[in-house]
Formats: sequence, structure tokens, C-alpha cells
Amino acid sequence: MWERSLVLSAPGKVILHGEHAVVHGKVALAVALDLRTFLRLRPSGEGRVCVRLPGVGVVRSWDTPRLQALRRGFAADFDESKSPSVEQLDTLKEFAGIAAGASAPESLATLAFLYMCLAISAKYGDVPSVDILVWSELPTGAGLGSSAAFAVCLAAALLTACGAISCPLKEGESTARWTEEELTLINSWAFQGERVIHGNPSGVDNAVGTWGGALRYQSGKITPLKRVPTLRILLTNTKVPRSTKVLVAGVKEKILKFPAIMNPVLDSIDAISQECQSVLEAMPANPSPEYYPVLEELFDINQHHLNVIGVGHPSLDRLCRVTASHGLHSKLTGAGGGGCGITLLRPDTSPLAVEAAKRDLCACGFECWETNIGAPGVTLHSSSSLNAEVLHALSKS
Amino acid sequence: MWERSLVLSAPGKVILHGEHAVVHGKVALAVALDLRTFLRLRPSGEGRVCVRLPGVGVVRSWDTPRLQALRRGFAADFDESKSPSVEQLDTLKEFAGIAAGASAPESLATLAFLYMCLAISAKYGDVPSVDILVWSELPTGAGLGSSAAFAVCLAAALLTACGAISCPLKEGESTARWTEEELTLINSWAFQGERVIHGNPSGVDNAVGTWGGALRYQSGKITPLKRVPTLRILLTNTKVPRSTKVLVAGVKEKILKFPAIMNPVLDSIDAISQECQSVLEAMPANPSPEYYPVLEELFDINQHHLNVIGVGHPSLDRLCRVTASHGLHSKLTGAGGGGCGITLLRPDTSPLAVEAAKRDLCACGFECWETNIGAPGVTLHSSSSLNAEVLHALSKS
Repeated sequence: MWERSLVLSAPGKVILHGEHAVVHGKVALAVALDLRTFLRLRPSGEGRVCVRLPGVGVVRSWDTPRLQALRRGFAADFDESKSPSVEQLDTLKEFAGIAAGASAPESLATLAFLYMCLAISAKYGDVPSVDILVWSELPTGAGLGSSAAFAVCLAAALLTACGAISCPLKEGESTARWTEEELTLINSWAFQGERVIHGNPSGVDNAVGTWGGALRYQSGKITPLKRVPTLRILLTNTKVPRSTKVLVAGVKEKILKFPAIMNPVLDSIDAISQECQSVLEAMPANPSPEYYPVLEELFDINQHHLNVIGVGHPSLDRLCRVTASHGLHSKLTGAGGGGCGITLLRPDTSPLAVEAAKRDLCACGFECWETNIGAPGVTLHSSSSLNAEVLHALSKS
Repeated sequence: MWERSLVLSAPGKVILHGEHAVVHGKVALAVALDLRTFLRLRPSGEGRVCVRLPGVGVVRSWDTPRLQALRRGFAADFDESKSPSVEQLDTLKEFAGIAAGASAPESLATLAFLYMCLAISAKYGDVPSVDILVWSELPTGAGLGSSAAFAVCLAAALLTACGAISCPLKEGESTARWTEEELTLINSWAFQGERVIHGNPSGVDNAVGTWGGALRYQSGKITPLKRVPTLRILLTNTKVPRSTKVLVAGVKEKILKFPAIMNPVLDSIDAISQECQSVLEAMPANPSPEYYPVLEELFDINQHHLNVIGVGHPSLDRLCRVTASHGLHSKLTGAGGGGCGITLLRPDTSPLAVEAAKRDLCACGFECWETNIGAPGVTLHSSSSLNAEVLHALSKS
């Protein structure tokens, strides 16, 4: 029986460089965003598993015998290397009362929880009676990897609760992380959760949520960068809705229309990702202020390129103009056509300049967070290490 | 003795695509701008050659015997294939009372006139007593080829006056142009005038002034395009001063700093020039409205690229934003860093939209002309074919 309370968190992600170009075989750099999803795991009343996701309005609980019976109904083919099958997901939907075509976040989150709970308990021994509460600093549906942060937290919590991985937080420590081997297991199961939610995800988001820092992605291959600095940023959500699918199709169309003009632009974006990787890897050993103008210039160049390939938007132009008026450099991040932009702050950017930029961005109707990239991956926390907002959010019983 | 009055004109030029990239061996497209320099040639009092350039404040006249004596002082080595020598130019400066290092437009224009007058008369027989008045719609020093338009007009007038080429304007015709062979001679001498003014010009500007239309320039090779359409544009001078030399050096520095990022951008610009050439060459045979969105898209892409290579300017961003707010597409033309921008108008762009855009551009402190590109090269005019402003400017005796 699980008797300990624990809190863990996983970061969101942003694409630093290479969005869209990555679809055409170029390098992308994804970095961990220090807007985090937090999960509190507590022992619950005997014989119940409870899950509460207030951010998406989910409060569900199930008797453990019913879950065990459901699990026995499946062929025993849960495995972190195999995609969830359509039959498995249909059975779970029926069990949870989720309509066949449901795609709302609350339905997909519930389904991911049920799948991971059954699959992990089938493989490693029963998940004990637990009460899980998840709260996130990340907005959903903004391309910031909120579903992956959720899946990483769930995987880490469920694997810990059933004893498949250790609970490395020692008395008196404020935070702790798992071993490389344990992280690999967490990542594998988080990827399964992402598959339940997204069907055919790239695996980048859960890898960033698990390992944190920064990673390079190209043609399906994910390589974490060795050491990366933590960089201050503003993350701004223009709140302009867009369809990633439509934007990706538009880029493809432009490449087909003007191949000789567009293919070099993709090559240039590829070179930007690689140059940025070199800079990030050089910074920890030699924290010179000279790197920041280079990072800023790469932002500016790539923002122009993203406009060229057709994924800009007047709201993003405005975001760039507003931050430029405060001496700051921005680019869109992710799909573009609206959505989010990222603004680099230097270590010595004055708080006054940051506040002024935030005020002006909010005056445009945008939502703006001052945060970091290159943040740690999935982490265990002592209560004393959590800030007041997180403590408050997790204190609801 | 020359007894006829005649008026001729030559167009300015703008770079449509390929500015800066041309320095690195890529294709540029230069087009004739229908802002023209006009020259009136009249018989003068016997034994005098007069030249008046009110735009640069020059009013000079010389006795023809003094000019003949000056010419005999040179070794007889004037030739349109040889660069003016330093000694020749020093002698002319002394004769005209121009200080050794003078680089003001009035000094260079006077020097070019004297050189061309002496050289052409040395080769083809004396220039008769004439009175030359030059007036231009082109601003000077804005990268619009005003010196070349001046040199082309001078070459055509002096070659006509001394009988080296015909005077093709027939009674009752409103305009006339010279034969291909005559144009080649005009261009050669205009290039000499440009050499006096600029030292080591590319020859693009005088070629555009001579042949009009559009031409392709790459690695020193100038190729006129066969047939090109006349396109409506707005030409806007931001009046922000800049140094072409500094801008060219900045681009080179960026290429050296980020070769893998910048070289593909130059390749993309090269492809834009070539795509634009294809479109321009296809338009006369098939004047479909479908070409305009392509030309607009090429403008937008190249403007982003020019920002990437570092020759943009906030004034040019503003120009693009103002015209975009009227549904129009713009790019910088020439050196960038301020200077001029060009805005494409469609055949069906409403006069109201054009007027509104012009008003907003002027409100930015910019100067704005509604004109055409793809204009005819050096042309003879009957008085009746000239508009009131030109007639008025040329009527001053």
C-alpha cells in the first residue's frame, strides 16, 4: 500500500528554432519551458483510484476491483513499446463513458490516465489506491507541450507508486530527479500517454518533459544536448487561433510553387538551428555576454524566414515590434499563424524594461509569462520547495 | 551649324530584385523608371557652348575656340572604349575651375559635360554652338540612376549635334528612338560620362537609361530582357540618408559571420530574380492578372531577405506596413538602410487606394511618386508630346 504523499512536476516545451523546417528533414531545437505541470500523489481511501484535473474539469474515481476486472478483459499485451490499440482505447472509452469520437481535452486526459494506469499496473504490479491531483501553469492547446507534461507527470507518479522506479527524494532535500535509466522508462510510458492523446506524436514533447534542457530533433531522431544554459524569456500567447495542419500544408504548397526560392530558406533555417546548438553548448563552459547578441540575431533571422515560408501573422509582427521597441528580440514559436511568440531576455535586461514590455504586450490583448527555457525535466519536490501559488493549487483536497 | 531645337529624355532606374546579392555573383534585375531626365538642345549664339543644369545649380558657357584649344592640348586619345584618364580629368578641372577633390554633383556634372563634349567632338567633328538645358524628374543621390540618365541624355544630344547619329524624329511624330546601333554608341559614351562621375560604375544604370525596359545583370554581364510589360508603381523616398559602401561591407561581414545561414539566402534571392525574369518575359504575350500576386509575393519574400542580410531600416519597415494597410506590397530598392522603396500597383488598383497610400506615405515624411517601370529608354520628343511641367521647366531660356 502506498503511504507517502509526493509532488512532482514536468516542464512544457517551446521550439527554439526549426519549426516547420523539421517537417522537411531539417534540424529543430526544442527546449524545456519552466512553466510546469504539477502532480500531487496521495494515498486514498482503500480500494479507490481518484484523479482530479481541475484545469480541464475532470474529477473521476474508480473502485480498484473494477479497474482490475477491466484490465483482465484485455489481452495481456500492454507494453511501453507498443502503440495503444484501437480496441483497447474503444474499451476504455466505453468504460469511462466517453463518446467514440470525443476529442475534448477532458476526454483525452481521462483516457490517457486510464490507459497508463491499467498498462503500468499490468506490467509492474497493481497501482495502489491513490489520489492524483494535477495542476498546470501551462495553457492547453497553445503548442507548449501541456499534454506531454501531463503524460510525463502521470508516468512518473504511476511508475513510482507501483514500485517500478525509486522515489529519490530524501528527507531534507528540496528537489530530486530520477536516474537516467528510470527517466528512460518514464519517457517511454509518457510517450504512450501522448499516443493516446495525439495518435501519432513525434515524441519530442515528452522527451523534453522528461529530460528538460534542450534537444535536437531531425528525421525522427531525438538527441538531448549535453549541457545547456537556463535562459530568461518572455513567452507571449497572441491567443490568435490557428490550425497547425493548415499551416503545414501551406508551407508545403509554397515549396512546391517556388522550390528554388524556398528550399534555400529551409537550408538557412537548418543552419540557424545548428548555429544555435553550438552557441547553447558553448555557453555553460564560457558564460560570456557575447553569446546573447548572436542568439538575438538568430531569432530575428528565423522570424523573417518563418514569414517567408508563410507562417507569420500580423499579431506576431506586432509582438515583434512591441518587444523591439524595448530593445528585445522575438520570434514565433511552434506552428505560427498566431499562437505563441518567444522573446529573449539577457541576464542584465532591466526589470523595468521587462515590465514595460509585458505591459505593452498585455495592452495588445496578449497573455505574457516571464519564465525560463532550458528548465529541468521531470522533478520530485518537497512541499517546502513549492511556491505559494502551486501550494495553494495543490492544497485543494 | 546646328539649327534645330530638340528635346530628348532618358529614364532613371530601380533595382527590382537582386540588390546586394549581385555583389556576390547573383542575378539582379534593373528596370527603367519613368521618372525621366529631359534635355533641350538649341542653337546658341555663334561660337559659344552653354550648359544649364538648374537642378544642381550649374550655368556655364565657354567660347568654342577655347574648347578647341583645350582639346588640342590633349593627346588625341579620346575613345569610348578607354576610361577617362586622371590627367585628362585634372586638366578639365583646372580649365573649369573645379577644386582637385571636388565631389559635389555640380562639379561632377560639369566635368562629365566637358569630357563628353571634347571627346565626342574630337572623334566625330566639332560640336556646333549649342545651348543645352537639362531638367530632371529624378532626385539626385537617391540611387535612382540620375547621373546615368544625365549622361545618356548628354551622349545622345552631343552625338546627334555632331552628326555621329541621326535625328530620327520625323515631322508630325510625337516621339522617336534611335536604331540599335546608334543606341549602342549612345550607351558607350554615356558610360564614359558615368566613369567621369563615379570612377568605376557597373554600366547597368546607363544601359537601363539607353535601352529602357528591364535588364539582367550578373558578374559584369548585362543582358536586356526581350519584351517586358510596363508596370505601375509607387516609388517612395524615405529620405533617410545611408552609405552604400557601409551597407555593402555590412552584408559581407554577415556572410563571413554566418556563411551557412547567409549563403542560402543569397541563393534564394538569385532564384527570386530568375523567377521574376520569367514572369516579366511571360507577361507581354499573356497579360493575365494571375501574374500580379506572384510579383507581389516575390516583393514580400525579398524584403524579408534584405532584412536578413542587414540592409533593412525602420523607415522601410514603416513604408511596407503603410502600403500593406492598403493591400499593397513593397520592398526596398537599391542599397537599403533607408533610401527608396518600391510598391507594386496592379492595373486595377483603385485610384482611391493609391491616393490613400500616397497620403499616408507623405504623412510619414516620405516623398512619393506614382510612376511606371519598364519605361522606354532614351527618346526624342516633339514639343507637343511633353506635359505641362516638363514644357514649363524647359521653357526657361
